[in-house]
Amino acid sequence: MSSTSQLKIGDYLFHRLSQLGIKTVFGVPGDYELALLDLIGDAGVRFSGNANELIAAYAADGYGRINGAGAFVTTYGPGELSAYCGHAGAYAEFVPVVHVVGYPGVEAMKNHTLMHHTLGTGEFDMYHEMVKHISVDTAVLTDASTAAADIDRCLNKMLLESRPVYIGVPVDMSHRQIDGSGLQTPLIRTLPESEKELLDKFIDGIWPRIKHARSPIILMDGNTVRNNLTAEANKLAELTGWPYFTTCMGKGGANEELSNYSGVYGGGGSIPEVRKAVEDDSDLVLWLGSFRTDFNTGELTDFVAETKTIDLQRFFTKIAGRRFEVGIHAMLPALIRKVEQDKSVVKTTDVKCAYDPYPTPSGAHDASAALTQDYLWSALPALFRSGDIIVGETGTSAFGLAASRYPKGAIGYNQTVFGSIGYAGPSAVGAFLAAHEAKNPNVPPAGRGILVTGEGSLQLTPMCIADFLKLSLKPIIFVLNNNGYTVERLIHGPKAFYNELPVWDYRQLSTVFGPKAASKYYGPVRTRGDLDDLLKDPGFRGEDCLQLVELILGELDAPASVMLTTKAIEAFNQKHAAKESGTSLGG
Amino acid sequence: MSSTSQLKIGDYLFHRLSQLGIKTVFGVPGDYELALLDLIGDAGVRFSGNANELIAAYAADGYGRINGAGAFVTTYGPGELSAYCGHAGAYAEFVPVVHVVGYPGVEAMKNHTLMHHTLGTGEFDMYHEMVKHISVDTAVLTDASTAAADIDRCLNKMLLESRPVYIGVPVDMSHRQIDGSGLQTPLIRTLPESEKELLDKFIDGIWPRIKHARSPIILMDGNTVRNNLTAEANKLAELTGWPYFTTCMGKGGANEELSNYSGVYGGGGSIPEVRKAVEDDSDLVLWLGSFRTDFNTGELTDFVAETKTIDLQRFFTKIAGRRFEVGIHAMLPALIRKVEQDKSVVKTTDVKCAYDPYPTPSGAHDASAALTQDYLWSALPALFRSGDIIVGETGTSAFGLAASRYPKGAIGYNQTVFGSIGYAGPSAVGAFLAAHEAKNPNVPPAGRGILVTGEGSLQLTPMCIADFLKLSLKPIIFVLNNNGYTVERLIHGPKAFYNELPVWDYRQLSTVFGPKAASKYYGPVRTRGDLDDLLKDPGFRGEDCLQLVELILGELDAPASVMLTTKAIEAFNQKHAAKESGTSLGG
Repeated sequence: MSSTSQLKIGDYLFHRLSQLGIKTVFGVPGDYELALLDLIGDAGVRFSGNANELIAAYAADGYGRINGAGAFVTTYGPGELSAYCGHAGAYAEFVPVVHVVGYPGVEAMKNHTLMHHTLGTGEFDMYHEMVKHISVDTAVLTDASTAAADIDRCLNKMLLESRPVYIGVPVDMSHRQIDGSGLQTPLIRTLPESEKELLDKFIDGIWPRIKHARSPIILMDGNTVRNNLTAEANKLAELTGWPYFTTCMGKGGANEELSNYSGVYGGGGSIPEVRKAVEDDSDLVLWLGSFRTDFNTGELTDFVAETKTIDLQRFFTKIAGRRFEVGIHAMLPALIRKVEQDKSVVKTTDVKCAYDPYPTPSGAHDASAALTQDYLWSALPALFRSGDIIVGETGTSAFGLAASRYPKGAIGYNQTVFGSIGYAGPSAVGAFLAAHEAKNPNVPPAGRGILVTGEGSLQLTPMCIADFLKLSLKPIIFVLNNNGYTVERLIHGPKAFYNELPVWDYRQLSTVFGPKAASKYYGPVRTRGDLDDLLKDPGFRGEDCLQLVELILGELDAPASVMLTTKAIEAFNQKHAAKESGTSLGG
Repeated sequence: MSSTSQLKIGDYLFHRLSQLGIKTVFGVPGDYELALLDLIGDAGVRFSGNANELIAAYAADGYGRINGAGAFVTTYGPGELSAYCGHAGAYAEFVPVVHVVGYPGVEAMKNHTLMHHTLGTGEFDMYHEMVKHISVDTAVLTDASTAAADIDRCLNKMLLESRPVYIGVPVDMSHRQIDGSGLQTPLIRTLPESEKELLDKFIDGIWPRIKHARSPIILMDGNTVRNNLTAEANKLAELTGWPYFTTCMGKGGANEELSNYSGVYGGGGSIPEVRKAVEDDSDLVLWLGSFRTDFNTGELTDFVAETKTIDLQRFFTKIAGRRFEVGIHAMLPALIRKVEQDKSVVKTTDVKCAYDPYPTPSGAHDASAALTQDYLWSALPALFRSGDIIVGETGTSAFGLAASRYPKGAIGYNQTVFGSIGYAGPSAVGAFLAAHEAKNPNVPPAGRGILVTGEGSLQLTPMCIADFLKLSLKPIIFVLNNNGYTVERLIHGPKAFYNELPVWDYRQLSTVFGPKAASKYYGPVRTRGDLDDLLKDPGFRGEDCLQLVELILGELDAPASVMLTTKAIEAFNQKHAAKESGTSLGG
């Protein structure tokens, strides 16, 4: 493309998305965006429609976590509003996502015409005002002369902050010709670089604190993953030999085959040995990308002294509570270089000698015993292998997976901060597709997509199964059927009517959503022996089609960490109510 | 309850909902709202959970249209955001709906604690700021001393404006004791009354204009329905004998058995005889509750001279463009009284002598011919009977139903203004339930629920079928399967990839979503004869279980009004783009 070439606004936008490595854009078509979608193929990008907009937003989020950026298109009003939950989740969890919205025509907006999808008031800017609260930048492209700059500003802001942006394209603007020479200027994909010399001086300044620590540990948390720095974190852990922990939000980023890998820390939700090692036995906690929300800290029961903490974040580092303007992208490589120069900080810890970060549940070997959560999480790793992407739903699935050992090279995530149930399935569509697209399409994929969800969560967005089938993704889907919202029962109302769910027939789910595609149902799995047999079955472990496994679990059964955490949540929620009013809550 | 009685904030809220005639509240449970839900039964109200929050919002909207008010409960953040599309739709269409949101604790918000469902920023008010754009009033009950007044202010505002409100209940506030004496003061269910004498003077003032009209007509539009004044409109039409029309948004409100009933007017989307009668032949148009949005006016092609129009709205009347502060609730009864006093304005029009407002499609009697849209809409009325509630989805269903004759006493609606596909099914859940609850539960229901939707729309919210089954509602569901988004194909991209849909198996849909409930599938119906046979089948016309009919229709087939309107939309969308840039759009 020559630097003086003219092209359409829609072309400019899709070429930019293509430069971000985006090969597939999700969404739901609506009449305000159809002309825009006519242009998508010109940029080598394809559109894959979803059953609804929330699913599209979640899929773009999953895609963005694997690819580094994701995108979806909705229509003005109903379409975009239906997706705000997914859009906000990407904001909370630092996922770079472009939400493109097909807007009514500029003329119609100027004339306050009563168009469909408005509120019938003649106003058009209310949705844009709403979405500003959950976006790092927004633009509605009503002016062709600034459209390219508006697009670039939004995308660069998205890359800088790793959070979603919103770009509205009026139906009469997508085909307007503009100067396309801006495409020659690459988007800014790196953070502002710290001055190398200053950085080294800063590291030298803090080095004595690190050097003289007797029991330093590394705690790799969610913002390491969200900054795409897990390889660097794993390298630092390997080099130092320090006890190496992760968190619920960091789970799926750590190399758990390192001999110093020591388990998942979540305050009071941790196994006691892990909690003691992090909170009591350490004298230095190198906390990589902390994200200390309630679900990530055993309901805020993480008692790690600030005075011994070095916390690396995207734009700053905090040392004993004092903030310095140098971020994790500069700090991690600098720390690695420093350790390579000064091996005196290396420790030879073999934490597994001291305790097992994955304790085996009692009575594990009784094949006829009913399947329990703790057994499930200790058995599931027999299936996992390098290259797998493991997505866990908020609730018992994500907490349970934290207690499952992942092989080196298996990755995974959950939505620990925002915690929207119904997220995992559609998000996995995007994540598995991005992984698939990144590989050589002529050879079988090295890794598989594994989705672990509950039946209550699946009921919010079951149509994601149609997406898996349509896109020829062949995931293994575990559905934990515990006859209701178990994690909510544990928080409040164990026997309450509102935690009940309609009974569905999961056998037919995949044939309803894709009768022409191959798929298999396994189950219902009720015993430990049934699960073991399934995990050993070579037919099950293949990747020939979508496989859905229904696991029957007790209504009030949950992994130990959930038992601890949900009790803490209930206590947290009731504490002030009880204190202030003197009443006791029902349920 | 004594006037000095103390009760909990949650009790106060649910008692108020009960006073609004609300027997069922929809929603999805989340931990911030569980303690609140513990109180729901005390007020004689029940909670019926939905698969997701968008479905809950739509169901509350449908319930509100039939009952006069609806309510649903979601959790803070993901829950409420997922429902904003339904919430905004109620705003656009003047449906009184209470959106109750379970909030984090007051203390947690004050301390900026990093709670789940937030954006991880320590802020808590962003969702409240967002929802203000789509609500007529909002409150977050952080102060027990004003909670009752806050609730009452919101509910009265909802009743005044007939639009949704938002009430946030922090998890530690729902059980706080307050003075409950406010419950003795009824909510304000009537609009401010106009001074009777002044009103009569106003009517006297405009009477000469009405009296001297040679060809007056009545056009009953959506805001008559939304003001619950269809009985009055039908009475005025019957009394005057004037040609009586409705619109797409008004469809389902008019008594179509009146001899002067004359069909559906929608500008260029009308049949030519209707358009001529309204636009050319009339010299006075009494437009009851106009809502002149694009979809309701054949894409703004309604050419009715303002000088001959009297338009009655909720808070004002416009005569020849001049606004007077007296609304339709006062005006309609006053006009009825005046006509009863002065019969000189009565005309004896029998419009059906002049033309047939429901023309029969050509070749209708060839039983082996493929089913067409026009045939469908002329055949379907054989099924309808008094008491039926007929809900049509935006798209070919709603436009098509406009061409179907409804018997007296059958009512119906669609979402003409907001036009969110996926709305009709969940909305019908609420509407059919409200109708069912209003009846004597010991006798069979007089009317049935009939839902007409497309397969593309059904794919957004198919889980509404689980609600029908769980609630023992026994609707007849017509699914128009035309292998894609037909109405969008007609607007733009008849062969475009983005208007394709995954193929689902609709035979199994109801057994997947309710294996324990009785349900029946009929189809696929491909010919006119098959449809006629089905509509005559006494087994099909019963109400013993949910019945789903799959109708196979041509990809580009649509009712005549859609053909006209979608062409008008495409022209409208492209007009300025073509004019300003000189380019032609693809597709």
